[in-house]
Amino acid sequence: MVTEPHFSRVRDDAATAAVCDLLKQRFDDRFTTGASFREQHGHTTTNLKNQMPDGVVFVKNTQEVSDVVTLCNEHDVPVIAFGTGSSLEGHLNAPFGGISIDLSQMNAVVEVHPEDLNCTVEAGVTRKQLNDYLRDTGLFFPIDPGADASFGGMAATRASGTNAVRYGTMKDNVVSLKAVMPDGKIITTASRAKKSSAGYDLTRLLVGSEGTLGIITEVTLKLSGIPQAIAGGMCGFPDLESACNATIMTIQCGIPIARIELLDVMQIRACNLYSKLDLVERPTLLVEFHGTETGVAEQIELFGEIVADCGGSDFQSASRAEDRTKLWTARHDAYWASHELRPGAKGISTDACVPISRLAECVTQTQQDLEDNGFVATTVGHVGDGNFHVLLLLDPESPAEQEKADAFLSRLAHRAISMGGTCTGEHGVGQGKMKYMLEEFGPALAYMVAIKKAIDPKNIMNPGKMLPNLG
Amino acid sequence: MVTEPHFSRVRDDAATAAVCDLLKQRFDDRFTTGASFREQHGHTTTNLKNQMPDGVVFVKNTQEVSDVVTLCNEHDVPVIAFGTGSSLEGHLNAPFGGISIDLSQMNAVVEVHPEDLNCTVEAGVTRKQLNDYLRDTGLFFPIDPGADASFGGMAATRASGTNAVRYGTMKDNVVSLKAVMPDGKIITTASRAKKSSAGYDLTRLLVGSEGTLGIITEVTLKLSGIPQAIAGGMCGFPDLESACNATIMTIQCGIPIARIELLDVMQIRACNLYSKLDLVERPTLLVEFHGTETGVAEQIELFGEIVADCGGSDFQSASRAEDRTKLWTARHDAYWASHELRPGAKGISTDACVPISRLAECVTQTQQDLEDNGFVATTVGHVGDGNFHVLLLLDPESPAEQEKADAFLSRLAHRAISMGGTCTGEHGVGQGKMKYMLEEFGPALAYMVAIKKAIDPKNIMNPGKMLPNLG
Repeated sequence: MVTEPHFSRVRDDAATAAVCDLLKQRFDDRFTTGASFREQHGHTTTNLKNQMPDGVVFVKNTQEVSDVVTLCNEHDVPVIAFGTGSSLEGHLNAPFGGISIDLSQMNAVVEVHPEDLNCTVEAGVTRKQLNDYLRDTGLFFPIDPGADASFGGMAATRASGTNAVRYGTMKDNVVSLKAVMPDGKIITTASRAKKSSAGYDLTRLLVGSEGTLGIITEVTLKLSGIPQAIAGGMCGFPDLESACNATIMTIQCGIPIARIELLDVMQIRACNLYSKLDLVERPTLLVEFHGTETGVAEQIELFGEIVADCGGSDFQSASRAEDRTKLWTARHDAYWASHELRPGAKGISTDACVPISRLAECVTQTQQDLEDNGFVATTVGHVGDGNFHVLLLLDPESPAEQEKADAFLSRLAHRAISMGGTCTGEHGVGQGKMKYMLEEFGPALAYMVAIKKAIDPKNIMNPGKMLPNLG
Repeated sequence: MVTEPHFSRVRDDAATAAVCDLLKQRFDDRFTTGASFREQHGHTTTNLKNQMPDGVVFVKNTQEVSDVVTLCNEHDVPVIAFGTGSSLEGHLNAPFGGISIDLSQMNAVVEVHPEDLNCTVEAGVTRKQLNDYLRDTGLFFPIDPGADASFGGMAATRASGTNAVRYGTMKDNVVSLKAVMPDGKIITTASRAKKSSAGYDLTRLLVGSEGTLGIITEVTLKLSGIPQAIAGGMCGFPDLESACNATIMTIQCGIPIARIELLDVMQIRACNLYSKLDLVERPTLLVEFHGTETGVAEQIELFGEIVADCGGSDFQSASRAEDRTKLWTARHDAYWASHELRPGAKGISTDACVPISRLAECVTQTQQDLEDNGFVATTVGHVGDGNFHVLLLLDPESPAEQEKADAFLSRLAHRAISMGGTCTGEHGVGQGKMKYMLEEFGPALAYMVAIKKAIDPKNIMNPGKMLPNLG
């Protein structure tokens, strides 16, 4: 593997200015260098510093993306894809400047093939938009990250959400991608066939590549049938460990549970405040079952027995759609609700994922860590996958708190990795978790760098993200 | 992307002799240059010419694989990984000579984590061996290619089989890999966590890479719970189209069918001859349902209605394990059974996969093509995935038949690709389907070549396979 001297990037002001001029000529008012647009496109919901791009271009189709990338490649100027801006790890920042390519206007559903259970959407389509569009087909797309993210962003960060325990992540639900590569060429990674043994899996190489190898412009998605019956509910536990154990047993018993979410005491308190609920403040599992009427009834019965075995409260089933919606809305609002616990605080969200056998241990140690360090924080988890989130509520004016938080985040990543897990189950690496990549991947990291260098030799694609510079 | 002059390989007899000497010293009687071993390791069950490696080394652990690869890399000599030799597309041939690394003695189950529903096996473990080993755990590994293949080979060719419609392919069931890379370094591609958003998906880059990027030495596999209830059965149809339509409706209705296999008239005739059965000779679906007792009963009822709607015969359910085994043994023996139709003939097996909406059309056109050209042939299919196989029975002494067969294979690949499908659903590319790669992938193929060149710059890893030389 050859180290190319170009790989460590330096900012070239003249080249950037030239590109901006050319983009202005070509895109007119769809290209802007206005500070507010630039700031919004470097926006992070995190503690990472905003690093603005030099300009923002609003594209309408794949060919335009190709034209912008070709131009930037010629002038050696970075490009950063932008969907809805819901990244939590600084994926959208422009540490070396460059052009933010905003794909939000590429928001057409290109085609739906109900008979093949798939559809193709432009990268700017959001998950809620697609599910509204599909409403009359009896099909839906199950993956639901916290934000109403765009499919380009969801694919690029290998997103998942509350349904992943049953339906998998973006890795499992993307059939094929259209992407613009660093040299401006447009590729389609795979056919619409349900499976193939032909060639390297470029689809899954781009899924999770965070815009560092190519810009995803269309996504062909696997769809699922809306289940005949949906039921859900909640139950409380005396401690986090019991809740985790109930989760582990549920997965081991092969119950095809659709959602199993853990909320800790602090999160329940926050939800009560924010969503005007009166839930008992204790570790709580929020669950949902999908299937036929009898299948769901069987699942509920089995799950109820497990909950009882683990010392949980009576499992309250909510089969009325209205009640379920209320509970799940509270869960989806968990991030915002948490801010009620410390008004004016800045929320820093992180995630980790471990083999489910280590989940109770990892969550318990993490809770102890939070307590030892006096953080105001909430923990929620897609615990059926061994994945959990911690939201720290920090005084935005306190460098000391920030420093303590950084140390905590680092301990959490190390803890997850040392338990055979990963520093991120679904948020991605971005800028925030680059420092854990070598620890997590060891010698494998060098091959990721080799791939990056081969496909993007000038390092124009979202530089300064995911891969620490090993060159 | 730089074209390296080295990429087109030429055979170096002196280097090969030097490597053979060194391997003999190091591995003694675990290294052989005997013609029968070499021939067996270049063995193909196809019409492709046997191209023997220069020597065969029987390795016992990952470090030994690393040592062999390091040596071959230093001397610029090809390495070809060998598991059980069940490839159908010439993956194991040595067109440029080199060393066959036989991993069949790496056959230990390394660890089983029932609580995490996964296990780690050495590359030489076969699927039947693992399922025997797991017998008392209540778990099983569902993917079942026709042969009792090794997990290294199954991962390397992105294999699947009859259960894929419910359980997915190797792409979906490999959690992580240990592999020896072309420079001899040993990597682990991912943690044991159920999901991760960290880094490029090297796991799925290696799955399906056919030994061209690295040699897989350990595989961590997702396991599934043995279903509480299994039922299966069969039903006949007046024509192939009705059978395909029943399949499409079954998938669309969301019936979580575990297996749905199509056998054409010729295949049923062959099975009757070979397995001493007396099945009615008509297009037939062989199905299996997994679930709870009531879940399976529900699936059977729904499926029965679909069959009736499509003009199928009464669905015969076989819930006795003994009856099911008999049917599925006949299905698994289909390849050998086909030879009964033309004793002394040579069987050439191919596969293709299309979106399920095009399945009836693709199968029907292919049957017409077979008939128009007077082939003796059988068609079977994992039709729930849109994947089907044709086995041509050819006179091994007739170049004319062989030529006609090549033209047929080519038409089939083009037909599948033109219908939005792939030239191979599960057999892989190897040597046989390299010529369709550009048609299937277009500009995307260049990025596969770029990855290959970056990771294996000397092109020592299974050269002359999968990627046509675009350099």
